[in-house]
Amino acid sequence: MTALLSSAEPGFAQAFETLLGSKREASVEVSETVAAIIADVRARGDAALIDLTRKFDGLDLTPQTMRFSSEEIETAYRAVSPQIRDALTLAHKRIASHHEKQKPLDHIYTDDIGVTLGSRWTPVEAAGLYVPGGLASYPSSVLMNAIPAKVAGVERLAMVVPTPNGVVNPAILAAAKIAGVTEIYRVGGAQAIAALAFGTETIAPVAKITGPGNAYVAAAKRQVFGTVGIDMIAGPSEVLIIADGSANPAWLAADLLAQAEHGAGAQSILLTTDEALAKAVLAEVDRQLATLRAPDNARRGWEEFGAIITVGSLDEAMSLANRIASEHVELALDDPHSWIDKIRNAGAIFVGHHTPESIGDYVGGSNHVLPTARSARFASGLGVLDFVKRTSILGCTPQALAELADATVTLAETEGLEAHGKSVSIRLNR
Amino acid sequence: MTALLSSAEPGFAQAFETLLGSKREASVEVSETVAAIIADVRARGDAALIDLTRKFDGLDLTPQTMRFSSEEIETAYRAVSPQIRDALTLAHKRIASHHEKQKPLDHIYTDDIGVTLGSRWTPVEAAGLYVPGGLASYPSSVLMNAIPAKVAGVERLAMVVPTPNGVVNPAILAAAKIAGVTEIYRVGGAQAIAALAFGTETIAPVAKITGPGNAYVAAAKRQVFGTVGIDMIAGPSEVLIIADGSANPAWLAADLLAQAEHGAGAQSILLTTDEALAKAVLAEVDRQLATLRAPDNARRGWEEFGAIITVGSLDEAMSLANRIASEHVELALDDPHSWIDKIRNAGAIFVGHHTPESIGDYVGGSNHVLPTARSARFASGLGVLDFVKRTSILGCTPQALAELADATVTLAETEGLEAHGKSVSIRLNR
Repeated sequence: MTALLSSAEPGFAQAFETLLGSKREASVEVSETVAAIIADVRARGDAALIDLTRKFDGLDLTPQTMRFSSEEIETAYRAVSPQIRDALTLAHKRIASHHEKQKPLDHIYTDDIGVTLGSRWTPVEAAGLYVPGGLASYPSSVLMNAIPAKVAGVERLAMVVPTPNGVVNPAILAAAKIAGVTEIYRVGGAQAIAALAFGTETIAPVAKITGPGNAYVAAAKRQVFGTVGIDMIAGPSEVLIIADGSANPAWLAADLLAQAEHGAGAQSILLTTDEALAKAVLAEVDRQLATLRAPDNARRGWEEFGAIITVGSLDEAMSLANRIASEHVELALDDPHSWIDKIRNAGAIFVGHHTPESIGDYVGGSNHVLPTARSARFASGLGVLDFVKRTSILGCTPQALAELADATVTLAETEGLEAHGKSVSIRLNR
Repeated sequence: MTALLSSAEPGFAQAFETLLGSKREASVEVSETVAAIIADVRARGDAALIDLTRKFDGLDLTPQTMRFSSEEIETAYRAVSPQIRDALTLAHKRIASHHEKQKPLDHIYTDDIGVTLGSRWTPVEAAGLYVPGGLASYPSSVLMNAIPAKVAGVERLAMVVPTPNGVVNPAILAAAKIAGVTEIYRVGGAQAIAALAFGTETIAPVAKITGPGNAYVAAAKRQVFGTVGIDMIAGPSEVLIIADGSANPAWLAADLLAQAEHGAGAQSILLTTDEALAKAVLAEVDRQLATLRAPDNARRGWEEFGAIITVGSLDEAMSLANRIASEHVELALDDPHSWIDKIRNAGAIFVGHHTPESIGDYVGGSNHVLPTARSARFASGLGVLDFVKRTSILGCTPQALAELADATVTLAETEGLEAHGKSVSIRLNR
């Protein structure tokens, strides 16, 4: 049942703790199964991929048919309506333009004693992009993962997507084409992650793997981490709306339901200073649920994990919001800009009455891959930085080395690392 | 035995693959033990910490003695020689100055259709720093972990260090004092990681945990990842030296031994175009080993995982170096600056004959926590970015929302997310 809380009530602290700690995701123990799949792909390469794809996807592949041909991609692109192609193209343009601004700059300088110091950024050489099949096969996610990699300068981008019984959503291939992804394999699950991490005869290994997936894919990403880099393991999606009396209850209800319709643990929370608004939103949610063609997911999400919390002040709302650390925070406030800096822990902030979260899912320009499950306390959304790495540069002149020698030898000796000190002193002709 | 390879020999490709794949770290299976320790600390808090510290460190604590008092820290600071304090202070000054330049800038702008877009960076609220006890208890690591957190603006920094039988290295506390760390607990192992992640009555939880540790600490960090952020799990240290005929064989031998003395899987590799240099270095290593007071670690490291590879050209050396993706790369070249950009995969590059890697371990200014085990293909060294997170900002005017509405509704509908579309269309009064 949707939680209705007031911060003025006794017992609120405990109820809020319960809300914070609510477990919205069933933990499925698949790590042994996944370990066996990874070992199989490492040992047998393509042969294992082909066997596992027959078993899990009911599809017979050969090394020749494993990769989509450029004709197949082109055909899928044409099969998609011009309206969808145009929407994907607009999304691509806006996402690429925003991510261009995230590229980090090299910074190399010489300090006052003549030491050259710096940070140099380079793209990873190859990245793998996992795309789920079935229900959660979203073309927007293809764009959100591929574009930062392309903007970062990653030369090779390999995409994998399971095609149960050979069926693929053509919009996925259209989005890939628009994003410039040409290397696409019809494999999925833990076996696809293993192929990307370790390579097979047909699929060359990558250095980084991103993209959402089911419990098997998530477990496989955890297990190959270290051999390759991975992005965050995404949990169920969530929104936190902070509203004052200036907000439109119908708009807020629509936003709460938009999040709730993700089902499977999705969470929508409204924090408001206005008790009348809280009641109006609650009624609007019911009214709008009746207008949806397929309301089941939204209703379940809202009833299972939805919450409305009334608070005494916006300052109090901000403080609770920072503890919730939501993936998405909407500021449905009269003066939203003056509150942005009070929100410290959030994946993304949507500012003002005319910025529903779903704008950020598609065409706003920012990335929709954001930290969930309170991880916005320490993590950031996907971006260009996930596809580059920083190399430190250090260079001493003979004079600078001489100036730093005594301190280095002192510290090396105190740490019991005699040879560290000698590698400096041997250069000094002392 | 130290590997001597030439890229001109038949069989080199295979021998190089073997070198790349060599497993330098024993895998210790401790995850069940660690899971039990974490569960115990979550369930019993301080009481569990006290029991486990008695068991593993032979030390009786109370909630009152768990934390070092400011007098104890001050006493340790005074117990350290002025020479060591001065060296730590110089290191602190240089490391802080360099890391100040890593602070990311917020960037918020309005695009051509009136959408406000941006990236805003905020520090994590609290970070935990693990410091090992015993042999690998390095004051330099305290600085390298604490300084980026302080520069990032982290308000609360909690340090944990095991003190077997109550003994602590005073230089650790002196380094903490110099770095401005005042909250220090005498607990270690998986139990300390659990306390930092979940909190106890005495230790408040943090959002991010960094710092090196043994197999139990590493396993605990993996297990609490998600509840908190963690840094990379560090493997054995390694250096790759690329040298031409201009290099001094005695200096190179000293650098190879400095890395090898870390023991326990440390690896030193020399790549050179000059066969005579390779032979001279080999002889110098033997000569210098005889001059070390405690040569055992360095000898073992060099014999077990050391390698000298002669190559036909520097271009070939760079290509092999990028496959090795070493933590540290030294360019002992006549014209090192023109080769920096050819090194793509490296944690840090040390430029020229007068920059031994050990300068970077202590007082160079760059961070010595760097990606190991080929992870420089996708990962970066520790820095300010590890203690901040990015929040996306998105704000639409009514006009901008109207302009983006059709594409959003189209994409939401194609993804089966009806309520996503409605949260936009409801705002348009259509």
